[in-house]
Amino acid sequence: MFDFKILKKIGRARTAEYLTPHGVLTTPAFIPVATKATVKTLDSDDVRKIGFNSVLANTYHLMLEPGSGLVKKMGGLHKFMDWQGPIFTDSGGYQVFSLGKGITHNTGKIRKNNLTIGFPTSDSKKSLIKITDNGVEFRSHIDGRKIFLRPEDSIKIQEELGADIIFAFDECTSPYDEKKYVEKSLERTHSWAKHSLLAHKRKDQALFGIVQGGDWRDLREESGKFISALNFHGFGIGGSFGKKEMREVLDWTIPLLPEEKPRHMLGIGVIEDIFDAVERGIDTLDCVEPTRLGRHGTLLSSSGRMRILNGSYKTDKKPIEKNCSCLLCKKYSRAYLHHLFKADEILGMRLATIHNLTFMNGLMADIRKNINNGKFKEFKKKFLKKFI
Amino acid sequence: MFDFKILKKIGRARTAEYLTPHGVLTTPAFIPVATKATVKTLDSDDVRKIGFNSVLANTYHLMLEPGSGLVKKMGGLHKFMDWQGPIFTDSGGYQVFSLGKGITHNTGKIRKNNLTIGFPTSDSKKSLIKITDNGVEFRSHIDGRKIFLRPEDSIKIQEELGADIIFAFDECTSPYDEKKYVEKSLERTHSWAKHSLLAHKRKDQALFGIVQGGDWRDLREESGKFISALNFHGFGIGGSFGKKEMREVLDWTIPLLPEEKPRHMLGIGVIEDIFDAVERGIDTLDCVEPTRLGRHGTLLSSSGRMRILNGSYKTDKKPIEKNCSCLLCKKYSRAYLHHLFKADEILGMRLATIHNLTFMNGLMADIRKNINNGKFKEFKKKFLKKFI
Repeated sequence: MFDFKILKKIGRARTAEYLTPHGVLTTPAFIPVATKATVKTLDSDDVRKIGFNSVLANTYHLMLEPGSGLVKKMGGLHKFMDWQGPIFTDSGGYQVFSLGKGITHNTGKIRKNNLTIGFPTSDSKKSLIKITDNGVEFRSHIDGRKIFLRPEDSIKIQEELGADIIFAFDECTSPYDEKKYVEKSLERTHSWAKHSLLAHKRKDQALFGIVQGGDWRDLREESGKFISALNFHGFGIGGSFGKKEMREVLDWTIPLLPEEKPRHMLGIGVIEDIFDAVERGIDTLDCVEPTRLGRHGTLLSSSGRMRILNGSYKTDKKPIEKNCSCLLCKKYSRAYLHHLFKADEILGMRLATIHNLTFMNGLMADIRKNINNGKFKEFKKKFLKKFI
Repeated sequence: MFDFKILKKIGRARTAEYLTPHGVLTTPAFIPVATKATVKTLDSDDVRKIGFNSVLANTYHLMLEPGSGLVKKMGGLHKFMDWQGPIFTDSGGYQVFSLGKGITHNTGKIRKNNLTIGFPTSDSKKSLIKITDNGVEFRSHIDGRKIFLRPEDSIKIQEELGADIIFAFDECTSPYDEKKYVEKSLERTHSWAKHSLLAHKRKDQALFGIVQGGDWRDLREESGKFISALNFHGFGIGGSFGKKEMREVLDWTIPLLPEEKPRHMLGIGVIEDIFDAVERGIDTLDCVEPTRLGRHGTLLSSSGRMRILNGSYKTDKKPIEKNCSCLLCKKYSRAYLHHLFKADEILGMRLATIHNLTFMNGLMADIRKNINNGKFKEFKKKFLKKFI
């Protein structure tokens, strides 16, 4: 039902075909995020037409709304959101982190630049979660009800959602956590990995284990060894990083993972990071970055990021990108998109999202092509030189 | 360049082909409103795929944002918004009414039910406009700058926008205005009609005159005679009505208009009103009703209006309408749409808009078919019996 076939390697970077119950995913691939069973502003036809055959939905969001039981009753995520290709669901661990350290440490997927040294000054922000060895207690941000999420619950919810690739429940630590805390947390994540494996029954789902361990080499290596020794279909690299640390973590961890199994990088989608992650052996990545940028009027192009509300685009007849085949670039000028954003027209967000995802899809195709023809390094250099 | 060919008449209702510089519009037709050069939430391909070949954009909104000069510079509305079919622009008169009596009289296109007798109690709401015989002074709701709009300005702006069918500048009175005021206003509208005709130069645009006169038979008849005697390509029926009065106004006015010229009903789009307007000889109508309803989660179906947020749809696997061919009904369940609206996902608004416009397009096709085969009255009765 699952088969991961490596096609070509160049250094640690590789292309592969990942067979799933809902079709073949060609990697390295960027996986658009369909948070609540929709890639924000787009319908499934839009996403397919752009060229993607896979999306990642968020367990945390869907368990709260509409609830995994309801999704199951409706025939599972594929049917519910009209998606015929492979679907990933994350474990909910990262969203729980966002409700906890994400708030008290004021951090996110990539560490904020102005807070790189030491522990950020604490303010009145309070964690909304309580972590114990059994799981995490938190309140729904929608209706305030108390929820206790154990690894077994995360797996059950992901089984009900019915994605092809699911993740073990983990704790994501903050770059501002003390090493002692990260050690304790890693123990928990490892215990939860075993619980997740034991709880998982569906044969048509591949369960991925998640490597954690903060920015510490010894902890990351310990985690890489521990998780890769378990009977997972594949692996996720989790964490909240500094920019530099993300690369180090991959350098420390990837060589410890079995070559023949797929590797997913959770929540990474900035162009420069994608190149570095792929170069280090990552097969798939998901991130809200390109879609969120689009909704806020930032367009990706081969020469960098464009803020479409900039006054210089007001009378600009050109498309966002000359040779782009997306709906926006084929039909509309920069001036029209500028107008849509200025006038708060929802269509602007949709067109910008379509463009940014088209850009990502094209980039990943180019990356695969250049791995296959042995020119990845040159391509990366050339691309990033122009992309400023 | 323009040719209006009546195909079939049954009573006053009629089907026709209206040739414009951007193709043939088959009537009776509903014209979706593309307020600021987009039918809200949709791109032009969406609207085309639904089956529409014509839209109406708002002069008032576009003159403020992005400005008619800019649209002209970008090659005109057709190019700017990627629309190859006929475009209408209104004159701005109705939006100016909304800033004036729409506020002080708390009224809109159709008189509010709770305010049917006499003048509504005045409150602190203040008119934002000043009307003189030369034109209207108002402040932009966007940047507060003062604007003076004369009939000549409205025509110039509409020439710059470049629609196929444009309207003379008029004053829309309120159902709560005294007859004396409406008389004076009508004089103004008639004078502005002549000024509009004189100012209009572009040969590739058809200028429509607008009949006003409130709810008074003598004034409506006077206006019908006056406007139809001028050299307009076609006619619009304007006004802010009571439900009953809309029908009376059409009965009084339509027989006075030349049979061989097209007639547009401004701002009418409630299903029951459409049937009554078409029955009385209206060829085209525009309204934000179906798109606005969609964005707020009300879906049109052959059995009436559905509030998708109603709890009964939470686990409903059925499509909105069984035989509907729209993107929403082909791909998604009521439960999915319920979820999208509950979760505030923008996609919900887009899918509901697509469905409602598909419904309108299908309704108008059925109306045309049933006029052509002589069964309009039976169709109307049958349709409205089911539509509750």
